Amino acid sequence: MANIAFIGLGNMGGPMAINLVKADHQVNVFDLSQAAIDEVVAVGGKQSATTAEAVQGADFVISMLPAGKHVESVYLGENGLINHLSKDTLVIDSSTIDSETAQKVAKELASKSIHFVDAPVSGGVGGAKAGSLTFIVGGETADFDNAKPVLEVMGKNIFHAGAHGAGQVAKVCNNMLLAVLMAGTSEALQLGVDNGLDPKVLSEIMLQSSGRNWTLEVYNPCPGVMENVPSSNDYQGGFMVDLMAKDLGLAMDTCVKSQSATPMGSLARSLYAMHATQGNGKKDFSSIFQTFSNKGE
Amino acid sequence: MANIAFIGLGNMGGPMAINLVKADHQVNVFDLSQAAIDEVVAVGGKQSATTAEAVQGADFVISMLPAGKHVESVYLGENGLINHLSKDTLVIDSSTIDSETAQKVAKELASKSIHFVDAPVSGGVGGAKAGSLTFIVGGETADFDNAKPVLEVMGKNIFHAGAHGAGQVAKVCNNMLLAVLMAGTSEALQLGVDNGLDPKVLSEIMLQSSGRNWTLEVYNPCPGVMENVPSSNDYQGGFMVDLMAKDLGLAMDTCVKSQSATPMGSLARSLYAMHATQGNGKKDFSSIFQTFSNKGE
Amino acid sequence: MANIAFIGLGNMGGPMAINLVKADHQVNVFDLSQAAIDEVVAVGGKQSATTAEAVQGADFVISMLPAGKHVESVYLGENGLINHLSKDTLVIDSSTIDSETAQKVAKELASKSIHFVDAPVSGGVGGAKAGSLTFIVGGETADFDNAKPVLEVMGKNIFHAGAHGAGQVAKVCNNMLLAVLMAGTSEALQLGVDNGLDPKVLSEIMLQSSGRNWTLEVYNPCPGVMENVPSSNDYQGGFMVDLMAKDLGLAMDTCVKSQSATPMGSLARSLYAMHATQGNGKKDFSSIFQTFSNKGE
Amino acid sequence: MANIAFIGLGNMGGPMAINLVKADHQVNVFDLSQAAIDEVVAVGGKQSATTAEAVQGADFVISMLPAGKHVESVYLGENGLINHLSKDTLVIDSSTIDSETAQKVAKELASKSIHFVDAPVSGGVGGAKAGSLTFIVGGETADFDNAKPVLEVMGKNIFHAGAHGAGQVAKVCNNMLLAVLMAGTSEALQLGVDNGLDPKVLSEIMLQSSGRNWTLEVYNPCPGVMENVPSSNDYQGGFMVDLMAKDLGLAMDTCVKSQSATPMGSLARSLYAMHATQGNGKKDFSSIFQTFSNKGE
Repeated sequence: MANIAFIGLGNMGGPMAINLVKADHQVNVFDLSQAAIDEVVAVGGKQSATTAEAVQGADFVISMLPAGKHVESVYLGENGLINHLSKDTLVIDSSTIDSETAQKVAKELASKSIHFVDAPVSGGVGGAKAGSLTFIVGGETADFDNAKPVLEVMGKNIFHAGAHGAGQVAKVCNNMLLAVLMAGTSEALQLGVDNGLDPKVLSEIMLQSSGRNWTLEVYNPCPGVMENVPSSNDYQGGFMVDLMAKDLGLAMDTCVKSQSATPMGSLARSLYAMHATQGNGKKDFSSIFQTFSNKGE
Repeated sequence: MANIAFIGLGNMGGPMAINLVKADHQVNVFDLSQAAIDEVVAVGGKQSATTAEAVQGADFVISMLPAGKHVESVYLGENGLINHLSKDTLVIDSSTIDSETAQKVAKELASKSIHFVDAPVSGGVGGAKAGSLTFIVGGETADFDNAKPVLEVMGKNIFHAGAHGAGQVAKVCNNMLLAVLMAGTSEALQLGVDNGLDPKVLSEIMLQSSGRNWTLEVYNPCPGVMENVPSSNDYQGGFMVDLMAKDLGLAMDTCVKSQSATPMGSLARSLYAMHATQGNGKKDFSSIFQTFSNKGE
Repeated sequence: MANIAFIGLGNMGGPMAINLVKADHQVNVFDLSQAAIDEVVAVGGKQSATTAEAVQGADFVISMLPAGKHVESVYLGENGLINHLSKDTLVIDSSTIDSETAQKVAKELASKSIHFVDAPVSGGVGGAKAGSLTFIVGGETADFDNAKPVLEVMGKNIFHAGAHGAGQVAKVCNNMLLAVLMAGTSEALQLGVDNGLDPKVLSEIMLQSSGRNWTLEVYNPCPGVMENVPSSNDYQGGFMVDLMAKDLGLAMDTCVKSQSATPMGSLARSLYAMHATQGNGKKDFSSIFQTFSNKGE
Repeated sequence: MANIAFIGLGNMGGPMAINLVKADHQVNVFDLSQAAIDEVVAVGGKQSATTAEAVQGADFVISMLPAGKHVESVYLGENGLINHLSKDTLVIDSSTIDSETAQKVAKELASKSIHFVDAPVSGGVGGAKAGSLTFIVGGETADFDNAKPVLEVMGKNIFHAGAHGAGQVAKVCNNMLLAVLMAGTSEALQLGVDNGLDPKVLSEIMLQSSGRNWTLEVYNPCPGVMENVPSSNDYQGGFMVDLMAKDLGLAMDTCVKSQSATPMGSLARSLYAMHATQGNGKKDFSSIFQTFSNKGE
């Protein structure tokens, strides 16, 4: 049983913390929302009044925060945890942020012998609840090995992507590719429909051919093709357009920094930005299908 | 044992005809290249001097030709087979052509009670040799059922996509999506490499995450990640850029006809056209990776 | 004074014919709409019951039709004008169609010693009324020279683009570029607005800098920047999205045929196809600005 | 006659400083390259050993530096000029940098009553030498008015874009649009050439039609169409691909920050990044034409 501080109990962080509690870890939680805290306390978590209080005696600190500036502030800001963490604590930041901030926090913490891995996740709220998330970890091998048993409580696939920041880079590459798959699959399906094909039949054909991809396997964007996916539930639930747009923004930052050419990913970013601009930011990201199929009614 | 006429013994048609011969069908072949004919005759095929001679007594006619104009010419042109085929013959056209021509040929042949299915394939030369092609069939259900046993000699997956022309539409949708997957995967991998990741590690992560797609599974475009794929063989063999460009041209024709928006597919077409323009038309289509990775030395 | 047959009195053809009448030419008109005919007859045109009647004694035949199939039908179809035109008549087809059809009609007519130029226009309904159209002509130099005085009645700029079909190719290149200018200018303006700039100030700066282009000069897409343009009139009037989409379809046909890479033009086509799909087909084409600016209210 | 400190004497800064000297201003210069300094001293400039020395007694400080980090360092870093500038000095930063850094420097300087405008330029090395640059200024109106007479020594068009940072935003919008114009014009010209048109004739037609834009007016990318432009000089001189790529990177940063959709600009960025990746970074930016025209020989 480990002593774990968990900071940030949003849609993802809440269920992740609950899974840690259920696995009999001692979990001290901090969040700005009392309602979020109550849900974890209800199953046995312990509320802390401040982040500093939460990390007292912690073997692990896990954070799940909205953006790089929050992560930097929590660890390095005024009253930052860098001044409160014991030597040899392992910080696991599961926020999806830019790799530069991850590297900066890692370096500063290392100067006080505090360990850090960036460990962004994929798998969404469903995966967080089911404990089947994918963690993509950047950091030293020893730290990865130490983090792994804790991450396995919350996830199914735990990858070591490389050095500090590599978890964020790999996440960004994957999600940029996912956006390309979703947009590309959507327009291919609609092209078939526009030319008389049944989207179920076309989906089945492409799934068993060289067009096969994750979206056809488990997340078909065309309403009615699959049950229990957002497209068959009016694009509710799932992974919001606004969040995909955020990840694609991180991808663009990464491209610009390394002067990489990403025409498909850049176009996907613009399509998602247009889709958000037209008022669809809160829908599931598979709703990009509507960009190609809506007939303006 | 069926009497089968096979017209067009190119890189694909040759091995397909050979598989039919090996399955003990009587196969009468026609091609403009004597060398191509010799290979099929060597295993037991029978050479015909003209297409008209080849189809005498045929239960099935299979054609594998470069473009719509050749198909139209063979069946409907001067001395076209429409005047030589017996009632109830089943024509299986496995060429990849535009759906309009397929529909036109189907309609004309039907006026003489000759049956027709369009049955384009995927799986490449390797699949043709191994008898593991995918056939995507458009036409009436009874004709599909009749064609199926013959197609199963040459292929593994036999799909009924819909009415006449639907096989071509589905093929075009699949290959347009494939081009998107290949370009998108290539740039995602290079983005990772440009930011310090090992392409093998990143490929493994995306393969098990939401970026999973056919190219990561069996056709990784980054040299050295997979063995026995074109990218690890200097992009030799496989599916040529020029052929992908041809298929993407058919996709554009289809989009324009139905006024469908296909931003990702259209961009993929332009990327492949640029790649061909720069002198890479004969390389495998996974060489699009070089567009993002070559450092101009 | 010439004897001119005018076929096709739509939004463009009507005012063009009227300008010819006003210049004291004898103009025999044919259209399917009596209302359209009436407008030209009111100023002195002469109604014909059939196209064949209209061209009797004509020195020039001018046609302004929706698409290639109409042009082919009028000239080469059953009862086509090819059988009614006198030797040495000069046919001026001002329809915007594919260059292949233009070349085909030219060739067939030439076999009967009938002259042909393709002469698509730009300048819109306003230009048609004002007699300030641009004509982009393909055909032989002697025919161009003969057509010029007639075209100058309806237009201000008369270009000789090259051989038969070249008028259509040049028109398609220009309009593809125009779509790129309009979409690119729109997103640049909105990017400025999103970052606090006044669109009038930004327009003025770019107009006098290297971003200068026709849309900033005379057709600003941002509402309120210019008076008397469609963007300041709820995107009414002007050049319809559906017509731009048609021209971009011709551009794609042209690219595919010559295997040219046109990433910017292809993206513009997809943006316009998406815009039309969302119900904006009847708005002016500068309404593509809304794709970037609408906030989904 | 004003006392002016000039910091940064690169390809642009050098000739700008020389023009100030020639207009009889007292110009104290600082650069890391003695050769660069010597050129200005040769016409009457005065060398300073440090930036702090250069700004002593200065009414104006003008800086022309490669990127935001250099600007931040010179003014706000250790030994930054913020500690050496007199109250009421007017700082004119003509570097092309991100607007956030410009706003940050402006704010910090303002806290010491030092005035600041961001004033990025366009017009290239030729414009810098000829004194015909365009300045796009962000800052308060009074400061703009004070800067104007000095800027007019170096430039022809002086725009006030808006508040602090607005100069940088407007510059980024303009240059993103310029990249779109250049790429779009290039592919339109090549499409014409691929279909048999003479690029001179097509350029002339589009220049006088709705495809008109700055690149057709003064900077045609197709070799041989215009004299005295980089395309007719093997793409030497002019505005380097690497610099355009840098500006497009700033444009992407700006888009991501404001969540604006810029599909055309993003594609242009990718095309330029690909072009640079293929080894063309030092060529003039109109060489993007080769992306569409090179035949891989």
